[in-house]
Amino acid sequence: MDLTNYKRLAILTADKLGPVSSKTAAGVIRYRPQDVVAVIDWAHAGRDLHSILGWGRGIPIVAGLAEAKPLQPDALLIGIAPMGGQLAGDFRTVVCHAVAEGLSIISGLHTMLKDDPELVRLAARSGAQLLDVRDPGNFDQVATAKAAILPVKRVLTVGVDCAIGKMMTSLELTDAARRAGLDAAFVPTGQTGIMIAGWGISIDRVISDFTAGAAEWLVQQVSDKQICIIEGQGSIEHPGYSGVTLSLIHGSCPDAMIMCTRLDRIAHRHVEQCPVTDIRKQIALCEQIASCVHPVKVVGVSVNTAGIPEEQARQQVEQVARETGLPATDPVRYGADVLLPAIRAAVQL
Amino acid sequence: MDLTNYKRLAILTADKLGPVSSKTAAGVIRYRPQDVVAVIDWAHAGRDLHSILGWGRGIPIVAGLAEAKPLQPDALLIGIAPMGGQLAGDFRTVVCHAVAEGLSIISGLHTMLKDDPELVRLAARSGAQLLDVRDPGNFDQVATAKAAILPVKRVLTVGVDCAIGKMMTSLELTDAARRAGLDAAFVPTGQTGIMIAGWGISIDRVISDFTAGAAEWLVQQVSDKQICIIEGQGSIEHPGYSGVTLSLIHGSCPDAMIMCTRLDRIAHRHVEQCPVTDIRKQIALCEQIASCVHPVKVVGVSVNTAGIPEEQARQQVEQVARETGLPATDPVRYGADVLLPAIRAAVQL
Repeated sequence: MDLTNYKRLAILTADKLGPVSSKTAAGVIRYRPQDVVAVIDWAHAGRDLHSILGWGRGIPIVAGLAEAKPLQPDALLIGIAPMGGQLAGDFRTVVCHAVAEGLSIISGLHTMLKDDPELVRLAARSGAQLLDVRDPGNFDQVATAKAAILPVKRVLTVGVDCAIGKMMTSLELTDAARRAGLDAAFVPTGQTGIMIAGWGISIDRVISDFTAGAAEWLVQQVSDKQICIIEGQGSIEHPGYSGVTLSLIHGSCPDAMIMCTRLDRIAHRHVEQCPVTDIRKQIALCEQIASCVHPVKVVGVSVNTAGIPEEQARQQVEQVARETGLPATDPVRYGADVLLPAIRAAVQL
Repeated sequence: MDLTNYKRLAILTADKLGPVSSKTAAGVIRYRPQDVVAVIDWAHAGRDLHSILGWGRGIPIVAGLAEAKPLQPDALLIGIAPMGGQLAGDFRTVVCHAVAEGLSIISGLHTMLKDDPELVRLAARSGAQLLDVRDPGNFDQVATAKAAILPVKRVLTVGVDCAIGKMMTSLELTDAARRAGLDAAFVPTGQTGIMIAGWGISIDRVISDFTAGAAEWLVQQVSDKQICIIEGQGSIEHPGYSGVTLSLIHGSCPDAMIMCTRLDRIAHRHVEQCPVTDIRKQIALCEQIASCVHPVKVVGVSVNTAGIPEEQARQQVEQVARETGLPATDPVRYGADVLLPAIRAAVQL
């Protein structure tokens, strides 16, 4: 399936539209605005999308499937991750109606659409496609550090925590590299990245023995490029996701890393008793553990200042640059160009 | 399924019998000798099992299923991991015959017996059970460092590489703790450990987002014990398996760790270009990354001296103790008692 064939997406956020609460919707709207015809959200219908997300100007927010219909969507993209990853309630009703009417569904949920007998039955009747973006299939290769000897230079985003801006940083870096004349590829490792780029593997869904192997396979796919920017996942110190993070680091063998942070992230997401360690310590630890397989340094920092007033945002970026001695930016606010020279120096491009 | 209900195991090693080449067979024979009636190995039939493994005295090695039959096995346990994890050739023929004759199969292969249509068909006809020990089912809990606050004291074996003796070290430590009067549990995290203890989760087979969650769940199951010894997996610096290792560390929140090593392990298994780092550096790195979630030290070392002459083995153990400043032993050769005082001091038991 090439998800980029769908050019008239209706994005379902139920009542959760927002930059963090509907992370998938926000990412797809930012990086594929030309392919989005409507957002379906009954709590935000009629409001201005740009004022809620900071992007997506001109895309209407409608209250339901019926209101989206005149815009002739060719797929319904699930833009949120409901609690527990289950389809339920009004949310489920909309998805079922869409499938019944022949609209294909693009989903990044842990719960697979194709395992839902009612949806499968409805889809068989209507001809709708059920696209489970998070399903890695039967991927079963163990990594053996083959990425280290690929000609493509590899840049990986890492973070002090999950949900902190690694995907957007990677996309902005790819854009900056391309504008600088480099033949650059974005390497998607999560469901939203895959929905944006149209390919990839959701590595948090791969069997743990093969997770680093999936990262290795992903960079092999772009080995003919000059440089690739790999979407990071989780954090090396997050109790739930650190294994995914380390698999990605050791599987992709980065030549340079960009650390992503957010100054108000005091504790780890969903694990309030685990404080986020000082960024300098996390940089040192990431470098040390990555370098067990392939020597690498963190060469820049991405500071997520979403929702923070302009003057304070600038101060935060300057503060992080000072503390770490590394170039820093909020790539969503200011672009990623300032990180490029350090990356090019590190990867010799 | 409680695998310990099977009390008359025939263990199939094809032509691969040996302490390393048939790791699963070796483990089950060492720790459940009373439940093994025969080893089936056409290259080693008639030879003395004890002289090959160093244990298993009196258990016959036979050439095929027909020769095992008079010993009335109640299950065929697959004792090796064939290349690629597939059932093929003579190996497959024996398994099919066994199933056709109603013998249940205990398998730890990545390839699930229950996904093999021929085996399923034969089993349905004969009433044989197909027991896929490595199948974690649909485990889907994310770890949130809940293990850290359990009353049970947690000891985890870690290693400088995979296949280095973490399971046997854990079993010998459990035995030593019990002999010292502690209410101790062994926590199996791999297929052989599960075959020995009759319960557990093969965490390398869990979806990576939930692997630490599986480790957390496992220690929750023994929370009423005084102490548990958790079977380690992989190595923090192995490019293929480091994610599994870190998930296990952060999911189980150990109060003490035992490092496992083998002095002739120069490069990582199956990744010859990746050297095994000095044990002192690996100890420091394990402590540092584990302590992100729960503060912990490596308090002892297990030195695998299998196949090494006695005098040299003693020297190796002494050398490691000197270099690390920690108590050291080969628990298979000398028992694990020498590691207990440091563990008890660390966990305050």
